[in-house]
Amino acid sequence: MSTDYQKILERIYKEIQLELKKGKVADYIPALAKVKKEQFAMSLTLKDGTSYSVGCSDKKFSIQSISKVFTFAQALNIYSKDMYKRVGVEPSGNPFNSLVQLEYENGIPRNPFINAGALVVTDMLVSHYKDNYKALEKILNFIRDISSNLEIDFDAEVAKSEMEHGYRNLALANLMKSFNNFDNRVDDVVLTYFKQCAVTMSTNELSRAMLFLAFGGKDPINNKEFITASQSKRVNAVMLTCGHYDASGEFAYHVGLPAKSGVGGGIVAVIPNIMSIAVFAPALNKYGNSHAGTLALEKFTTYTGLSIF
Amino acid sequence: MSTDYQKILERIYKEIQLELKKGKVADYIPALAKVKKEQFAMSLTLKDGTSYSVGCSDKKFSIQSISKVFTFAQALNIYSKDMYKRVGVEPSGNPFNSLVQLEYENGIPRNPFINAGALVVTDMLVSHYKDNYKALEKILNFIRDISSNLEIDFDAEVAKSEMEHGYRNLALANLMKSFNNFDNRVDDVVLTYFKQCAVTMSTNELSRAMLFLAFGGKDPINNKEFITASQSKRVNAVMLTCGHYDASGEFAYHVGLPAKSGVGGGIVAVIPNIMSIAVFAPALNKYGNSHAGTLALEKFTTYTGLSIF
Amino acid sequence: MSTDYQKILERIYKEIQLELKKGKVADYIPALAKVKKEQFAMSLTLKDGTSYSVGCSDKKFSIQSISKVFTFAQALNIYSKDMYKRVGVEPSGNPFNSLVQLEYENGIPRNPFINAGALVVTDMLVSHYKDNYKALEKILNFIRDISSNLEIDFDAEVAKSEMEHGYRNLALANLMKSFNNFDNRVDDVVLTYFKQCAVTMSTNELSRAMLFLAFGGKDPINNKEFITASQSKRVNAVMLTCGHYDASGEFAYHVGLPAKSGVGGGIVAVIPNIMSIAVFAPALNKYGNSHAGTLALEKFTTYTGLSIF
Amino acid sequence: MSTDYQKILERIYKEIQLELKKGKVADYIPALAKVKKEQFAMSLTLKDGTSYSVGCSDKKFSIQSISKVFTFAQALNIYSKDMYKRVGVEPSGNPFNSLVQLEYENGIPRNPFINAGALVVTDMLVSHYKDNYKALEKILNFIRDISSNLEIDFDAEVAKSEMEHGYRNLALANLMKSFNNFDNRVDDVVLTYFKQCAVTMSTNELSRAMLFLAFGGKDPINNKEFITASQSKRVNAVMLTCGHYDASGEFAYHVGLPAKSGVGGGIVAVIPNIMSIAVFAPALNKYGNSHAGTLALEKFTTYTGLSIF
Repeated sequence: MSTDYQKILERIYKEIQLELKKGKVADYIPALAKVKKEQFAMSLTLKDGTSYSVGCSDKKFSIQSISKVFTFAQALNIYSKDMYKRVGVEPSGNPFNSLVQLEYENGIPRNPFINAGALVVTDMLVSHYKDNYKALEKILNFIRDISSNLEIDFDAEVAKSEMEHGYRNLALANLMKSFNNFDNRVDDVVLTYFKQCAVTMSTNELSRAMLFLAFGGKDPINNKEFITASQSKRVNAVMLTCGHYDASGEFAYHVGLPAKSGVGGGIVAVIPNIMSIAVFAPALNKYGNSHAGTLALEKFTTYTGLSIF
Repeated sequence: MSTDYQKILERIYKEIQLELKKGKVADYIPALAKVKKEQFAMSLTLKDGTSYSVGCSDKKFSIQSISKVFTFAQALNIYSKDMYKRVGVEPSGNPFNSLVQLEYENGIPRNPFINAGALVVTDMLVSHYKDNYKALEKILNFIRDISSNLEIDFDAEVAKSEMEHGYRNLALANLMKSFNNFDNRVDDVVLTYFKQCAVTMSTNELSRAMLFLAFGGKDPINNKEFITASQSKRVNAVMLTCGHYDASGEFAYHVGLPAKSGVGGGIVAVIPNIMSIAVFAPALNKYGNSHAGTLALEKFTTYTGLSIF
Repeated sequence: MSTDYQKILERIYKEIQLELKKGKVADYIPALAKVKKEQFAMSLTLKDGTSYSVGCSDKKFSIQSISKVFTFAQALNIYSKDMYKRVGVEPSGNPFNSLVQLEYENGIPRNPFINAGALVVTDMLVSHYKDNYKALEKILNFIRDISSNLEIDFDAEVAKSEMEHGYRNLALANLMKSFNNFDNRVDDVVLTYFKQCAVTMSTNELSRAMLFLAFGGKDPINNKEFITASQSKRVNAVMLTCGHYDASGEFAYHVGLPAKSGVGGGIVAVIPNIMSIAVFAPALNKYGNSHAGTLALEKFTTYTGLSIF
Repeated sequence: MSTDYQKILERIYKEIQLELKKGKVADYIPALAKVKKEQFAMSLTLKDGTSYSVGCSDKKFSIQSISKVFTFAQALNIYSKDMYKRVGVEPSGNPFNSLVQLEYENGIPRNPFINAGALVVTDMLVSHYKDNYKALEKILNFIRDISSNLEIDFDAEVAKSEMEHGYRNLALANLMKSFNNFDNRVDDVVLTYFKQCAVTMSTNELSRAMLFLAFGGKDPINNKEFITASQSKRVNAVMLTCGHYDASGEFAYHVGLPAKSGVGGGIVAVIPNIMSIAVFAPALNKYGNSHAGTLALEKFTTYTGLSIF
């Protein structure tokens, strides 16, 4: 097993080329459909800030569901155990986008990484900050803080386009509201949610942003503590069991790292106490996770021998 | 078996008194929750217009889901076989208010008498009349026509109250919109739907209004044909298989008549070629159908020996 | 509308020819798979015993699920209201062969015409007659009685073949047993059930056998009362709401008669107080009901104007 | 954080006493129902074989579903990637014992730790060893090998009692057979499965048996390799995502270790590269996992600071 990370990233970059043709770029909104398929980037950041990367690692893309990790961490720090009254931490095991389960389970989403759960988390942040504009600002500021990067922002066109096609999310939010698990105006929260999903970041930025989750909630470079060590372990646990929708078990089985994917083609992962990783390859497999990104991470754990198991 | 209908109605009226205490008045909106429990009315109308009644048969109440029969008949007459592209005619067999099934079946509601189906029917009427205000007027006019009664109208307070608690219907409509089975703005259609449900009628008026369905789509008194004989049979068939939500089989089994209930406590029924019937008793059984109303109709078919089977 | 039944049958026979090519013969067991596709027969029997028929109306075929009507009538007569403790009368609304629903609803089948329900009915008959051999004899004797035909028997090869492929029925029975809704040994009851399904009859025989259900439970020719008038209406009600699996609503909508189909290609129907009907055409539609048989019955109600609605 | 394991175990033992009264001993078979509630044992084994324990750590109990870890490891070693044709590695997310999901997903169980999945694994072992007696012997020998203990055996009374109440497992197996995902006779495999579940072991024995999974598939004491390092990681990954039925997410969240529970009150866990652990406390929480055992493991990871995240 090797720890020459740059060499390993380059080997993966070479091996992954043919895989970039496979899968399908998300096409449910025009702004995502136009993303070029054959792109790849991978970045990792170590405790001391040293980082390695290959491919278009400065290219920004839509982080989409990766944002759910950030808002969950932020809300967990605010609400602590009160979170669990409104959202669970159990894999959903459900390929049907969870409307079914949400109904059977009285409007309490299975976990914060399915859409229903993430909407509740955003609703909780809107409640806490008492206003949806303020809540969005605080969400963006949290992401800027963990990234040590004030430039991070969302793509207004993507957010607008999401809203125009967001009927299923509106259905989820209204269903939760009918079960009294939604405090604020449905439209306000859903729009805030779409803006948070529309944040654009590069793999270099994402890998930096995830560093605090690899090191017990505290940024090892500037020593800022964003969440407690216990909360950090729990965010990682939820990433492992629920981070890849209905392919979370497969991902844990083949990759063996806490990680979260986004429909924009990104995946972030952590190797506790060692490093944070981000990968980007926009073509998705049938579960909605980056095809080549998943493979790249599997190769990475194989070549380095690193894994949590 | 007797055909002295007045005597039979009076017998039922007497026998039903104790049953009026059982069940629960709908309480999901204040305007319905305040309805007095121990009320009862039953009316029937024969081919020549002769009618019989007992109880508070001039007392108006909220017809709620009974309105679905009228809008379905109206839309069937407009769209004919094109109806089935957007809504089925199959019992749902589902106690869970059908969000589950709607998702599995790609946004096509099982039948026009579950909420999702009725929302699609109203959406079709809004599309046909090109405007939600016009559509509502046409719906009201259709009900006035079949009732031969220009005074029929909806209760604005009930409609407003429904809208304030209508998150589940908004969820259903948004879910159908995500499957491209909803043409107009969700809020516009849902509000039109709540207004149609808020129409108030007495059992005398409802029994008169249903007469055309007992006589092949044509009002036997004034000879107006509202729908074709074939369409009339089909509306009756859907009432029989789907008229009482997840207790439709029970109702067919015990009463044996095409009928439709509403959460306001009303039930309408037809005995083809003989008569139309309406009953009112606001306390509901666990399926959301009038408890005493169902029993009254069962007694009626037992005492008269009338049944379609 | 005409009542020259022979003429109507011949018209249908002619018109249906092209439809016989459509659909697919049941092929889950070899004994059924070898049935020739392009066969058709239709028979009807009036109150006085007069009967009309076209096609191969003396050709025996496997009645399969039509047998469920006979065992349900037989058990209802024995158990009366105690039936409902073990099986409901509600349409299942479920295309998935009901294992799902059976689990959610604690082992109580929705109705006696889905497989789970019919297995419970046979289990009840085995309990009542205290032995599976005796129960089978009583089932056969009941069918012989209502048919006025001592020759009726089952096809042992079909029954054996069913048993060899009957894992899903064994799953259903074991699941019910785990919920304490199955009294006898699973294998014994399932085998009895497969034998009852393997009874062979012609449309002439079936139409004669169904006559008692068209006339309030009493055979109008020999005046034998097999079940009460009230029970007869109820069997008809269940045929209407549940007789065609997940296409029962469609069938009620298009044909408008209480009827029951079998996977062998038969359908039986009654027009209360007028006649009983049987049709045979082995190729099935996607719901497992005879394609041409359904159409033939729809034509019959259209041409005669007869319907219960 | 401390590594004085004996002291930590004793602290946990003291703190857990009151918790032993909570929950309910499994009572679906008499042989388990008679187990005394207030028992507790906890054992851990380090790389060099050093072990620590508290409570009745030599008391044998029924390992039940813990056996699924052993048969899965054994079958994975035989079948390698061919496993996945017959069983997945995805959390089921389903509180309903998975009959529902098994039907929707065509007889392929979600993972090897739900009953359906474990039955398929045993079926695969019966196929491989060509006989159910031989398969059982090989299963027992595998457990004896990893435990370095030839005395380990199953409790025939428990196995017999399971078979007499095993209708749901028979339903699962028959359902899978109907989908062609079951090769051998249902009764043979189910009986073999019940015998494997009826193996009795103490926490000292279980902690020793799990050591190979803490050290990459190889027993660090005698250097026997039972499975490959990659297979070992994968067994651990499945324990983490699926080891506690529908509370696997909760367990990962609160305890943070790959672990598997059994309805007999045992839980086994590993801390990769450090140790294996076994705990016993027979009263179960509502998910069917040992109540005090789960808490004891949570305390252990808190007091030691050990976790995979």
